[in-house]
Amino acid sequence: MERVYNFAAGPAALPVPVLETAQKEMLAYGGKGMSVMEMSHRSKMYLEIFDRAQAAFRRVMGVPDNYKVLFLQGGATGQFAAVPMNLLKTEADYADTGNFAHGALTEAKKYGKVNVVSSSREENYTFIPEIPKEKLSPAADYVYITTNNTIFGTRYPFLPDTGDVPLVADMSSNILGEVYDVSKFGVIFAGAQKNIGPAGLTVVIVREDLLGNARADTPKIFDWKVMADADSMVNTPPCYAIYIAGLCFEWLEKEGGVPAMEALSLEKSGILYDLIDNSALFSNAVRPDSRSRMNVPFVTGDKDKDELFVKEAAAKGLVNLKGHRLVGGMRASIYNAVSLEAVKALAAFMKDFEAHNK
Amino acid sequence: MERVYNFAAGPAALPVPVLETAQKEMLAYGGKGMSVMEMSHRSKMYLEIFDRAQAAFRRVMGVPDNYKVLFLQGGATGQFAAVPMNLLKTEADYADTGNFAHGALTEAKKYGKVNVVSSSREENYTFIPEIPKEKLSPAADYVYITTNNTIFGTRYPFLPDTGDVPLVADMSSNILGEVYDVSKFGVIFAGAQKNIGPAGLTVVIVREDLLGNARADTPKIFDWKVMADADSMVNTPPCYAIYIAGLCFEWLEKEGGVPAMEALSLEKSGILYDLIDNSALFSNAVRPDSRSRMNVPFVTGDKDKDELFVKEAAAKGLVNLKGHRLVGGMRASIYNAVSLEAVKALAAFMKDFEAHNK
Repeated sequence: MERVYNFAAGPAALPVPVLETAQKEMLAYGGKGMSVMEMSHRSKMYLEIFDRAQAAFRRVMGVPDNYKVLFLQGGATGQFAAVPMNLLKTEADYADTGNFAHGALTEAKKYGKVNVVSSSREENYTFIPEIPKEKLSPAADYVYITTNNTIFGTRYPFLPDTGDVPLVADMSSNILGEVYDVSKFGVIFAGAQKNIGPAGLTVVIVREDLLGNARADTPKIFDWKVMADADSMVNTPPCYAIYIAGLCFEWLEKEGGVPAMEALSLEKSGILYDLIDNSALFSNAVRPDSRSRMNVPFVTGDKDKDELFVKEAAAKGLVNLKGHRLVGGMRASIYNAVSLEAVKALAAFMKDFEAHNK
Repeated sequence: MERVYNFAAGPAALPVPVLETAQKEMLAYGGKGMSVMEMSHRSKMYLEIFDRAQAAFRRVMGVPDNYKVLFLQGGATGQFAAVPMNLLKTEADYADTGNFAHGALTEAKKYGKVNVVSSSREENYTFIPEIPKEKLSPAADYVYITTNNTIFGTRYPFLPDTGDVPLVADMSSNILGEVYDVSKFGVIFAGAQKNIGPAGLTVVIVREDLLGNARADTPKIFDWKVMADADSMVNTPPCYAIYIAGLCFEWLEKEGGVPAMEALSLEKSGILYDLIDNSALFSNAVRPDSRSRMNVPFVTGDKDKDELFVKEAAAKGLVNLKGHRLVGGMRASIYNAVSLEAVKALAAFMKDFEAHNK
């Protein structure tokens, strides 16, 4: 079956071996005579799949024992509300480093006082600003960052020192792509559809001492404590997405885990940034210290050429390279499931395109 | 591949042709070189799948033009909060006819005044009580019912006349199983995992004049107006579940649509109720006028025999027949994708079991 090189920003490419397993097991999983989609979420056969996925995630992410892992619905956007509903009593400090970071702080304002402690909004989010220690409020319930900004192609080159104030991170677009010390965070969450698995699953990692403080009007499915107590099964979870995510975690483990993915993402993004930096045609607007290893935006500076690039690339099986409308040009999203081979094919095409479009 | 007869209450059996299509298209959908799970939700190829699913649902359900159809996340339990967040200003009337109905009214109390206008809670929910007209509050923002109660095997044999007050219905366990006149409702919602498709998708049908009144602190993903304006894509939807649901809608249409499913469900449930009513061993506790056509609970009156039944049935490939702990005994859930053949096999086994366990 002919497959393309898929550089979509999310939902995005999945590992081929995972899709092959899913295909094989579609009508009858492991001699059970039914699809995973048809299993009761309370059945022993499904609970084994669920527990296996959760255990694999804890292993690859290195989640300490005093953290709960929740498999929820609603996406990162759902957590933009759930975070303040579960944690915001007095005030919260937010870093405004992109479209989703801005969406998160806008949503949080519905539930309490929000301080913007750093922002690159005026500079079209082309870098990750410092978070000056004196900006952080000692009364803050948490400090909120977005570790990787999908649209603008930026990544935190540092973690802010927030002292005893819990650090909350939206890791949707670089979770499992680089090694993080989970113990440095109070809460980590991620929509699955970039670097975890299919859309429809949201993973939340929360330190146990932060559970149990939700507002009284928090919808049950957003209350982390209620969900933690029910092992994410207050209601039917997104069963099939969890199954696929579990296969992806096991694939990742076999590939060498997160350290191997981090090395690979440095290699993949390095190939593209080197090419761009040595190109007379392509450029990337992000400050070098803030460059993402997952999302590489680039432009020719000429709208017609950008369009031609996207069109000609697609004709060669390099698809979903159109940049986000807020940035324009092109963007290559190179999550874990995007192979080195795919990135090399893109680089070869870029060189070829430049040679023909000086 | 050996398939079992699956009587799960949800997630539940799916049509085999749907699973076969999903299997075929897993690695490369329609010459696109990628899985549906890998498609950007904003891409033309995915939007075609999305629009096709939505159009098919509108056709099979007969949704009038002045209603929006939303494809959301969070399950019916999410809507237990979303309904009052979007509609409850003064008070709301709830019918307490089962576990989920009770969960819905409990959740609604977080957001305003709730009147319980009818209840069979004291009778272990064995029937659908009348809703006396004088119980309905003229000031109510809506009247809330659960059309089919999965755990207790009951179904509304009537629709309450609520005058100008919008009727809101949780149809999770019988949507598309019988013909409803959507124009009689203000809002209909359903978790997908019983009679629509896989878990992780929630369908909401809402009359347009009811949009735009959400509480200020409603999470964005629960705000029907925000979601309607963005055609359910405020954030990434549960893309793959929508694709599968779309295939199920088209399968259903080919099978004759909801009228055919209603006739079939009358036949299937009729076979089981006739057998139970003529049995010296099996009984069903539900008042005959309130019997569900989707979920048929039955007991032998002897716990050991119940256990033996479930065990022996499973050995013959008739699985997920254990009743819910609140009712005990057995339960056969016979949604649209459960074939007449499956029900006949179950009936044959029941007769055989009775013959051997007098």
